[in-house]
Amino acid sequence: MTSSQIIDSVLDQVDSGLEQSLERLFALLRIKSISTDPAYAEECRKAADWIATELKALGFDAAARPTPGHPVVVAHGPEQVGPHVLFYAHYDVQPVDPLNLWHTDPFEPQIVEKDGRKIIVARGASDDKGQMLTFIEACRAWKAATGSLPIRISLMLEGEEESGGKNLPPFMRDNAEELQADIALVCDTDMWDRQTPSITTMLRGLVADEVEIIAADKDLHSGMFGNAARNPNQLLAEIIASLRAPDGSVTLPGFYDDVAEISPELKAQWAGLGFDEKTFLGAVDLSVPAGEQGRTVLEQLWARPTCEINGMSGGYIGDGFKTVIPARASAKISFRLVSGQDPQKIRAAFRAHVEKMLPADVSVKFTPHGGSPAITVPADGEFLRRALSGLTDEWGKQAVITGSGGSIPVVGDFKSILGLDTLLIGFAHVDDQIHSPNEKYDLESFHRGIRSWVRVLGALAQ
Amino acid sequence: MTSSQIIDSVLDQVDSGLEQSLERLFALLRIKSISTDPAYAEECRKAADWIATELKALGFDAAARPTPGHPVVVAHGPEQVGPHVLFYAHYDVQPVDPLNLWHTDPFEPQIVEKDGRKIIVARGASDDKGQMLTFIEACRAWKAATGSLPIRISLMLEGEEESGGKNLPPFMRDNAEELQADIALVCDTDMWDRQTPSITTMLRGLVADEVEIIAADKDLHSGMFGNAARNPNQLLAEIIASLRAPDGSVTLPGFYDDVAEISPELKAQWAGLGFDEKTFLGAVDLSVPAGEQGRTVLEQLWARPTCEINGMSGGYIGDGFKTVIPARASAKISFRLVSGQDPQKIRAAFRAHVEKMLPADVSVKFTPHGGSPAITVPADGEFLRRALSGLTDEWGKQAVITGSGGSIPVVGDFKSILGLDTLLIGFAHVDDQIHSPNEKYDLESFHRGIRSWVRVLGALAQ
Repeated sequence: MTSSQIIDSVLDQVDSGLEQSLERLFALLRIKSISTDPAYAEECRKAADWIATELKALGFDAAARPTPGHPVVVAHGPEQVGPHVLFYAHYDVQPVDPLNLWHTDPFEPQIVEKDGRKIIVARGASDDKGQMLTFIEACRAWKAATGSLPIRISLMLEGEEESGGKNLPPFMRDNAEELQADIALVCDTDMWDRQTPSITTMLRGLVADEVEIIAADKDLHSGMFGNAARNPNQLLAEIIASLRAPDGSVTLPGFYDDVAEISPELKAQWAGLGFDEKTFLGAVDLSVPAGEQGRTVLEQLWARPTCEINGMSGGYIGDGFKTVIPARASAKISFRLVSGQDPQKIRAAFRAHVEKMLPADVSVKFTPHGGSPAITVPADGEFLRRALSGLTDEWGKQAVITGSGGSIPVVGDFKSILGLDTLLIGFAHVDDQIHSPNEKYDLESFHRGIRSWVRVLGALAQ
Repeated sequence: MTSSQIIDSVLDQVDSGLEQSLERLFALLRIKSISTDPAYAEECRKAADWIATELKALGFDAAARPTPGHPVVVAHGPEQVGPHVLFYAHYDVQPVDPLNLWHTDPFEPQIVEKDGRKIIVARGASDDKGQMLTFIEACRAWKAATGSLPIRISLMLEGEEESGGKNLPPFMRDNAEELQADIALVCDTDMWDRQTPSITTMLRGLVADEVEIIAADKDLHSGMFGNAARNPNQLLAEIIASLRAPDGSVTLPGFYDDVAEISPELKAQWAGLGFDEKTFLGAVDLSVPAGEQGRTVLEQLWARPTCEINGMSGGYIGDGFKTVIPARASAKISFRLVSGQDPQKIRAAFRAHVEKMLPADVSVKFTPHGGSPAITVPADGEFLRRALSGLTDEWGKQAVITGSGGSIPVVGDFKSILGLDTLLIGFAHVDDQIHSPNEKYDLESFHRGIRSWVRVLGALAQ
């Protein structure tokens, strides 16, 4: 058989086995693996065991491995051919409150029809059990159709993604040798739209800092002291205002020094995505892009760093009015970073800027809240090229490369702990209601997600 | 007898009757007239009745008059000679918590010695029962020594000063004709220092506004939207920062248009007060005056308007960090005004300034929190001159004219409802711990406060 014939036979296997794939998905969805609530710890263990059992049945050397929190499932396929991929997903889910807003039991999955499409409704249907099983069912189809996996495959499936679990990075460090691979695959993202598959190659980094301005040693009465006493609210506002220039750019010295322009190719490709700025901003009742003038909204979101005031407080903020001059005022400020920017350097520049603005009798206290660099997968990589071609074959439309304005910490951990680049490939849609009542996954996302992985694995095997 | 001999005889009466004056003060201090706590309503009524009874015994036509809240005691002396003064004080007191910080029972007054001075310790000893009785006991001494009061005297003594009671202005409006007089006297302020009596002639006014900036129609994730979506925290900070120029002045157009410079005489007199800016700011751990450069701290506090950010909040302000771009941010902002400034004009200038800074897709909501103009008693008035001379005679040191950075609403009401100027004369000290545990009034404040009023009433009678 030609490789194309082989792929076709695996895809036939996917199509004919879809009912059984759905049954397995439903079995997993029925397990209430809510990671943040200790009452569901046993359910999390059950989900991990269920997955390990399924993977063992497919010939993987698989086990639910203990951590101080919920188990991490690690599995290694028997094949030693081709590139070695490490697939990541998470088996834990968000809580289901408010339960009364669900139209059906969140842990009794159903297929219903909505807007002419069949959707799978359940907590975790999309995030991330449905996405996880697209990969595992693709492995199953390869095994069933050809007797083996096309390349060397390992999996690492965690149970604390939804609870900010701090246990995965240490686990990765402790097992770094075992987890070595050539590339990581993550299935936890969206398609660009219903017709267009995408691979996310740019994730912004984050530096978060809390700044507290301390003026007088007690709250003062604005009648007694107003004008003569420094008001930390005023000073904090001046500091925050000074962080942005009128053209929307961030003013910190050196902030853009290490920021590269995106390539003309990527720029052209993004321009071709048909992204409608008016629709995007209009959906949240905005119309004026707030970032750097002369940049498209997509550039502002994916390829340009930002400074955001996530929280700000000082003085009396209850009902009514109090004429107080507070002793302190504080703000939670974060910087989204792009490739090249050093989180430590940005944090230092921010703090130096704040300190420069303080009068002699005012002090400042900084509290760091984590920092991680931006992630960029080299756009000319061979794995990326092959994965794009696999997706393009399945969907009949050129797969696109997208950025994301947010951060996915595990991708940074793959890079910093294991030295791995990551391909982010997912089949979810923006209307999947993840983290909300009535979460769903399109039946098409599930079915063609499995088919997509079949093709991507085939393409990686070439 | 010469008028000087008459005054001396009244002062002798004060001295010889001091023990009885103290007994009456103690009787009033034992009444728990905490106005803000409904559990003490009966005690408030008791205090009002006690005062009315005392005044009736002195020949006043006196009664505790009902209001929707606590009673107002109104009394009129029988004399029709000389100028007509309306004396104001309040018989209600602050709550006493935290009780465990009191060294003695707050409602069992004691005279103790502290730093070589005798002090009266009790809730209300200074604020305002002790101050109130200095005037009533002066009336008593005049009556005892001469058989009558030297001028026409009315009193209005309220019971809701400490509970923000809104019942006094309507009461004044309803009884405006009965409350007519030539000048109001208020005994609720401090001396300049232990040696120097003072009359406060300038009180700043106040305009308070709440401003809410509304951007997106929901909170946004700063990864998804950061840079492209307007952050209302940032915008609010820019608005606040724009309110002050680098030289410390307020930037609102027209803000200083109606602000007059203080007279060279007053300036010289304030310069002679020996006010130590370093000590004043140092007491609250500050050292750099924050207001207009080139103005003394006293000028900044008493004679220059200010803009203060009393409260500011937006986004996530709890523990930890959330990368949110909030939909809204808000601030409570007040302007302390000086004589000549129109509260409505200032409020309008502020709102126009805010609206001018809003991008097309951002809206604003304003909530007014009251406004009142500044009060200035004409510095060349005859009543002021006489009262200063009476105080100077008693203390053997030139009485000074001071300003106050704060507002005393009743003084504005005297002006706006009754058309009356007010002389603010008091004998309290900054260390009286009013509103705090272990409130005290110096025995000297009480004794020489009575003597001071004897002389002031005598001077007004000339």
